Amino acid sequence: MKRNLLLTPGPTQVPPSICEVLGKPIIHHRTPQFQDYLKEAVEGLKYVFQTKNDVYVIASSGTGAMEASVCSFLSPGDKAITVEGGKFGERWTELCEAYGIETTVVDVEWGHSVDPVVIKKLLDENKDIKAVYVTLTETSTGVTADIEALGKVIKETDAILVVDAVSGLGVTDLQVDNWSVDAVASGSHKGLMLPPGVAFVSVSDKAAALMESSKCSSYYFDLKKYKKAAEKTDTPFTPAIGIVIALTESLRLIKEDGIENLFKHYERLAKATRAAAKALGLSLFADDSCISNALTAINVPDSVDGGKLVKLMRDTYGITMAGGQAQLKGKIVRIAHMGCLDEYDMLTGIACLEKALNESGYDFTLGSGVASAQAVFNS
Amino acid sequence: MKRNLLLTPGPTQVPPSICEVLGKPIIHHRTPQFQDYLKEAVEGLKYVFQTKNDVYVIASSGTGAMEASVCSFLSPGDKAITVEGGKFGERWTELCEAYGIETTVVDVEWGHSVDPVVIKKLLDENKDIKAVYVTLTETSTGVTADIEALGKVIKETDAILVVDAVSGLGVTDLQVDNWSVDAVASGSHKGLMLPPGVAFVSVSDKAAALMESSKCSSYYFDLKKYKKAAEKTDTPFTPAIGIVIALTESLRLIKEDGIENLFKHYERLAKATRAAAKALGLSLFADDSCISNALTAINVPDSVDGGKLVKLMRDTYGITMAGGQAQLKGKIVRIAHMGCLDEYDMLTGIACLEKALNESGYDFTLGSGVASAQAVFNS
Repeated sequence: MKRNLLLTPGPTQVPPSICEVLGKPIIHHRTPQFQDYLKEAVEGLKYVFQTKNDVYVIASSGTGAMEASVCSFLSPGDKAITVEGGKFGERWTELCEAYGIETTVVDVEWGHSVDPVVIKKLLDENKDIKAVYVTLTETSTGVTADIEALGKVIKETDAILVVDAVSGLGVTDLQVDNWSVDAVASGSHKGLMLPPGVAFVSVSDKAAALMESSKCSSYYFDLKKYKKAAEKTDTPFTPAIGIVIALTESLRLIKEDGIENLFKHYERLAKATRAAAKALGLSLFADDSCISNALTAINVPDSVDGGKLVKLMRDTYGITMAGGQAQLKGKIVRIAHMGCLDEYDMLTGIACLEKALNESGYDFTLGSGVASAQAVFNS
Repeated sequence: MKRNLLLTPGPTQVPPSICEVLGKPIIHHRTPQFQDYLKEAVEGLKYVFQTKNDVYVIASSGTGAMEASVCSFLSPGDKAITVEGGKFGERWTELCEAYGIETTVVDVEWGHSVDPVVIKKLLDENKDIKAVYVTLTETSTGVTADIEALGKVIKETDAILVVDAVSGLGVTDLQVDNWSVDAVASGSHKGLMLPPGVAFVSVSDKAAALMESSKCSSYYFDLKKYKKAAEKTDTPFTPAIGIVIALTESLRLIKEDGIENLFKHYERLAKATRAAAKALGLSLFADDSCISNALTAINVPDSVDGGKLVKLMRDTYGITMAGGQAQLKGKIVRIAHMGCLDEYDMLTGIACLEKALNESGYDFTLGSGVASAQAVFNS
């Protein structure tokens, strides 16, 4: 009888109509029938990516799309900038280092976002930097980077701008073409409301040119193979058929609402959650200037063990939020606003957080979080 | 109203009870609840792999598991043998070459299997060969390799035996421990009756030792990461949650029947199909000495276009078989005996093949194929 509510920044809730498609018998992938689905999926992804660029579909988790965005564009010894400031920014560095890329790490304080002026200076001083790797929504801290400003800086150089939008795609505005974003890595299990297992990469002409000269050792994540297959509406390796077919339903749902409306919807959920946190006397981890609408990272009171808090909500009440990672372990709670969630899900989550905080001995006015969130929803 | 019967060597039919699990809302993967599923899945896989070795679960197609079995064990400049003789044997060579492995290709005639004596001679003459890559069931030709004999030869050397069992696992006997197989790459969408999107690798102690010294550039397919995560019943990257949970149902079904019984069952389906082909006056592509029970490759009459034949069966009658690949394009039809198929599915497939051959102008006694298959089933 227990609720199973995912307020986690991936995987997110899978809506009933998508579950229904996932539960159907599959078809073979080398058929005109599957090609129709793949074509529809890619067209729909272009709408969500806000791009006319190619978008490739890979059977892997989001990290696979990130790896493809390193090994398909660069060669060992090439220079790149990676922007850290959280777990996923660090992943860019690890990926570049795995391929022998000479990496300049821009180490942003956790909870803050990168200053485009820093990137401009580095690129001015190092004309041979080939790529800049950044994170749209850093889910470990609840920060959103200013991709538009970075795009303006980077498009004037020979470098490509590569964005990890695994968490942000479909949740936070990312105008790939208008903002000159050369490659975007994303995944199925966040804004797209699908189970994990499918990843995507969009590739601009500038990035495609780099692809031709790339010499990294790789096979499955070599985007040249995906480009060639895409010309025949195909994939180079067996696709995750079931999830790709379900993706067409996800994209239908997203188009029905309209992505601009979804961005506003998630902003509203985030605003209400931030208001609730403040009403509970809790501060937010991310700096106001770059706070994300895709998830809210709330500092747990010193007297409370954040790990235990998350376990209590999940195992006793069936409501799953994320705890902190790395140095933030036990110190924050992260509530996602992505995928198939509405204001009642947020109220449920906040009510549960109140209950768990109360049981953990934290002193506050019970009900004040829910009331504040509701005030935002009713305004 | 059209039937959707997959007689293809991957993907295979997904049984109703697995579809049901796939259609359920998912849960978060960093939870004790998911750990229970992962543990059950890995234990069940060990039963199917017939091994006590570690088995790692990767979110990718089968090729990802093959890539992991190259880049996690070897370093650029290392020597390896790849056994060709079909599309998937060639993939081993392509993978090794992508990583700068010095590859000795054993080029077996298509339709035949490798002679273990050839491998022994090569290993005797080249003591520094680190790995031998072979294919259990070469689905492009319908051949099964003698892994037991290869294991006997290779275990006496420093080399590891790595088997692509993407198609054969759970269909054809593969005694990983008894036959000294060091690594096996497999996938979810063949014998395991799941949609594609999850892959597996088993790793022996001998292979694990190589893993420690491997220096290939890779990240997502670096098995060291999977080994470390597995120690905490975890995966290094977001797993394909839905398919992993469904895998526990697949393994339940397989255990219920017992794999030895399944091997006999598929042998029976294959024997009946071979009898049907002969009754129709058609020859088999694979040599008798190494013919596979996982799928039957039937030579199409010269007067018939095999590509059109497959399209006719699929698009008009809703029964999907595979055509020929590469130099066999248009020349063979491949009928799979893997996953959730019974004798009535085979009779249906053979009846459809008869109908399509008849419509293609091929002269034979209508009904003779079905009758011969039925005779095998009733014997």
